[in-house]
Amino acid sequence: MGNSGLSQLATRTGEPAVSWLMAMTLSRPSLISLAAGFTDSTTLPRLETERLLSDLLRSPKKGRAALQYGTTPGDPELRRLTARRLARMDNGESASGTPYDPGRLFITSGSQQLLYMISECLCDPGDIVLVEDPTYFVFLAIAQSHGVRCRGVRLNPDGIDLPALDHMLDRLRKSGELHRVKFLYLVSYHQNPTGATTAWAKKAEALRILRHYERAAGHPIYLLEDAAYRELRFHGSDVPSSLQASGAAGRVIYGGTYSKPFATGVRVGFGILPQRLHQVALRLKGNHDFGTSNLLQQLVRSALASGVYQHHLDLLRARYAAKANALCRALRAHFPEAVVWREPTGGLYVWARLPHRIRTGTGSKLFQGALRHEVLYVPGNLCYAKDPTRRRPDHEMRISFGGESTRNLAEGVARLGLSLEEILTQVVA
Amino acid sequence: MGNSGLSQLATRTGEPAVSWLMAMTLSRPSLISLAAGFTDSTTLPRLETERLLSDLLRSPKKGRAALQYGTTPGDPELRRLTARRLARMDNGESASGTPYDPGRLFITSGSQQLLYMISECLCDPGDIVLVEDPTYFVFLAIAQSHGVRCRGVRLNPDGIDLPALDHMLDRLRKSGELHRVKFLYLVSYHQNPTGATTAWAKKAEALRILRHYERAAGHPIYLLEDAAYRELRFHGSDVPSSLQASGAAGRVIYGGTYSKPFATGVRVGFGILPQRLHQVALRLKGNHDFGTSNLLQQLVRSALASGVYQHHLDLLRARYAAKANALCRALRAHFPEAVVWREPTGGLYVWARLPHRIRTGTGSKLFQGALRHEVLYVPGNLCYAKDPTRRRPDHEMRISFGGESTRNLAEGVARLGLSLEEILTQVVA
Repeated sequence: MGNSGLSQLATRTGEPAVSWLMAMTLSRPSLISLAAGFTDSTTLPRLETERLLSDLLRSPKKGRAALQYGTTPGDPELRRLTARRLARMDNGESASGTPYDPGRLFITSGSQQLLYMISECLCDPGDIVLVEDPTYFVFLAIAQSHGVRCRGVRLNPDGIDLPALDHMLDRLRKSGELHRVKFLYLVSYHQNPTGATTAWAKKAEALRILRHYERAAGHPIYLLEDAAYRELRFHGSDVPSSLQASGAAGRVIYGGTYSKPFATGVRVGFGILPQRLHQVALRLKGNHDFGTSNLLQQLVRSALASGVYQHHLDLLRARYAAKANALCRALRAHFPEAVVWREPTGGLYVWARLPHRIRTGTGSKLFQGALRHEVLYVPGNLCYAKDPTRRRPDHEMRISFGGESTRNLAEGVARLGLSLEEILTQVVA
Repeated sequence: MGNSGLSQLATRTGEPAVSWLMAMTLSRPSLISLAAGFTDSTTLPRLETERLLSDLLRSPKKGRAALQYGTTPGDPELRRLTARRLARMDNGESASGTPYDPGRLFITSGSQQLLYMISECLCDPGDIVLVEDPTYFVFLAIAQSHGVRCRGVRLNPDGIDLPALDHMLDRLRKSGELHRVKFLYLVSYHQNPTGATTAWAKKAEALRILRHYERAAGHPIYLLEDAAYRELRFHGSDVPSSLQASGAAGRVIYGGTYSKPFATGVRVGFGILPQRLHQVALRLKGNHDFGTSNLLQQLVRSALASGVYQHHLDLLRARYAAKANALCRALRAHFPEAVVWREPTGGLYVWARLPHRIRTGTGSKLFQGALRHEVLYVPGNLCYAKDPTRRRPDHEMRISFGGESTRNLAEGVARLGLSLEEILTQVVA
C-alpha cells in the first residue's frame, strides 16, 4: 500500500531534533550533556512536595477534591493566585476587566501545551508567524507540524529589533501576504536559546507596530509572550510583561509555567488570553484532555498559598546563578578569544557565537570532535526558522547549565574548548 | 474587523455539549445530576495515594526522578507493567514483536489525549471515521473540530452490527469515498453511553471486514479500540481485546486509562499502536507536552507494583456494582413500563430508550420538566454522529450512577420518573 493513510499534519511532523540529541545522551553514559534543557536535580523540592501532598491528601475534603476531575479551565483558586501573583509582578491589578482577570486565565499541562493550542487556534497551513531569530526550537517544530511558515526577526541583546519587525511586516504587506500573519512569538525573559530579555518598552512598541498593520491584515495580529523563564532571574529587577502595554487586553497572549521554577515533573503551566480566544482555547482544552490533572493543580496551589513556592524559588535562583557562574568561569578559562558569549542574567542557557567560518551543525567537524571528546551541545542552526528570506546561521551553539553538576559543567566546557582549539587550529592551518 | 483571524480548526470547534450541562449543574446546587460522568468520590484512594507518594518522595533517588522531566513515551517501568498487565488480561504474551511489546506503548494524559492524537495522526478535514451509533460524545466533538465526518454503524447489545459495518463500507466504496475512511472507533467495554460490551468474535470479524476494504481504500483502515471502562466490570469474565485478533499488530490501536479505575484527578492513560503510528504519535506527544507528568506516572507505577491498584479496583467494582443496583432498583420502581433499559454489567451508565414519540433533547418538554424537578440527564441525541444518511434518534437518555450518592440516585430517578409520567400522560391525552 503506497499511500500511508496519515494526515497531512502527521506527514509534516518531522522527527524532533531533540530526540536525536536525547538518544545520543542515553546511549553514551560518559557523555556530558550541555545540550539537554534539564533542570537541577539536587534542588528539586522533594520533601516540600511530600509535605504539601500529605497535608492535602490527609484532609478528607481537599484530598477527595484533588483526586476527582476538575473543570476544564482549572482550579479557581489556583487561577486567582496566579493572576494576583502576575499582577503584582507587573505592578498591575488583578481585577475583572483587566488583563489579570482570573476569568481570562486557564491552566495547561506545562507552557508547552499553551504554545500548541495557540498555534491550533490561530493557524492554518500556509499562515505566517513572526519569531525571534533565533527562537525556541520546539516552537518551530509545532509550527512546522501545523504547516505554519515562520519568519525570523533579528534579535538584539534587549529583544527583537523593532525596525526589522516593521520592515518585515511592510514587506509582507507589499507581497500581499499580510493576511497570513497571525502572531508574533516572543520568548521574552532569559530567552531560550540566547538568554536575552526583552526590554519593556520594546514589547509595548512591538504591540503598537502589530496593531498598525492589522487593518491591512484584516484581522487581529496577536503578541504571544512566552514567559517560561521569567521567574529564573538571578538578580536585578523584574521587567513588566506586555500585559501592561496599551491595548494588551485584546491582543496579548501570555504564557507562564510553574514546572521550571518548581519541578519539571509537575506539568502545570497557564495562559492568559484575550476573552474571545480564551473561549476558543478552552474548547480545545476540553477536547485535548478535559483539563490538567487536578492533583498537580492542588499541589501547586498549596505551594503558592503556603509560601513554599516562593521559598523554593529563592533557593533555585541562587543555585542557578552559582551554576551560571561556574559555567562562565570555565568558558573564560577554556574557550578561545574568538568565541563571543554573554554572562546570563537568568534562565538556563548561554549562547556562544563562533567565527562565521566555523560550522556547529551535527554534521560539522566541531560537533563530531565534541562527540569524540564526549560532550554535547545544541547546534545553533536548530534554533533558526526555515525562513527562505535569509540564510540559516550555522556558527553558534546553545550551552545549558541547568542539568549537569558544576563539576561536569567545568569538565564539559574544557572538553568543548579542546574541540574548538582543534578546529580553529585546523582552519588557520 | 470582520475576519476573526481564527484557524479553520478553531472555527469548526463548537461549544461542547457538556459545558452547558456542567454550567447548569454548578449554577443549581439542589440539582441531582444523572448527567455528569464523575466517578465516586467516597472511594477515591486518598490515603493510599498519600502513602504511595510519601514513600516515593522520601526516597532521594525515586523522589528526584519523579520531580524531573521524564521521556516523551513515558516511564519505561510503567510501560512494562502496563503491557504485561494487558497481556495477562488478554491471555497474551508481552514479548517483543507481539502487540503487547512495551515499545509500542506510550503514556498519555488520560485516554482522552490518545483519542485526540489519533484523530490528528490520521485525519484530514473531510475524512471519514466509522463510529458506533450511539457513541462517546466527546469523541464526536474531537472529530467535528478536525472536520472529520462520522458515520454511525448500528449498535447491538453485543457490539456493532457486522452486516451494517460491511454494508456501510460497501456503500462508501460505491460512492467513491472509501479512500476517506481512516478508522473504526469502538468503545468496546461497558460502552459510553449504552453500557454494551463488544463480543470478542465481533472485534476480530470487524477487523477482518476493515482489511477486506483496505485494497480499495488504498491505505490501512485502523481499528481504534477505546477500552476506558474495561476495568470497571462488576462480575463475569473479561473479554479479550482486539489486540488478540489476527492482523492486530499492524492495524489495532488500543487505548486504556488508569484515571477512571484509580482516580480521575490523576490523568494517566496509555495507547498501544502499530509501530509506524507509534513513531508519529510520539512526535505529536513531544509537541503537545513533551510527555505526561512524571510524578503522576511514578504514582501509578507504585500503585501497580505494590498491589494497591488491584486492591482499590476490587473495592471500586463492588462499589459501582452496588450503585448500579441502587439505580436499577429505582428505575424499576419509578420508570414507566414503556421505558426500556438494561442492567449494566460494568461502567458508569445506563441507557434508557423511550417510546419514539417522546423527545429527550434539551429543548424537549421532558428535559425542561426534569429541570423543573431539579434532575439532569444526558439527552441521547448528543451521542449520535451528525450522519446525513440517517435521522438522529432523539428519544433516549444516558443516566450516570458514578458521581451521585445512592440516596441521590434513588431520589433523582424518582424525579425523572415523575417527569416521564407527566409527559406520557400528556402525550396520551
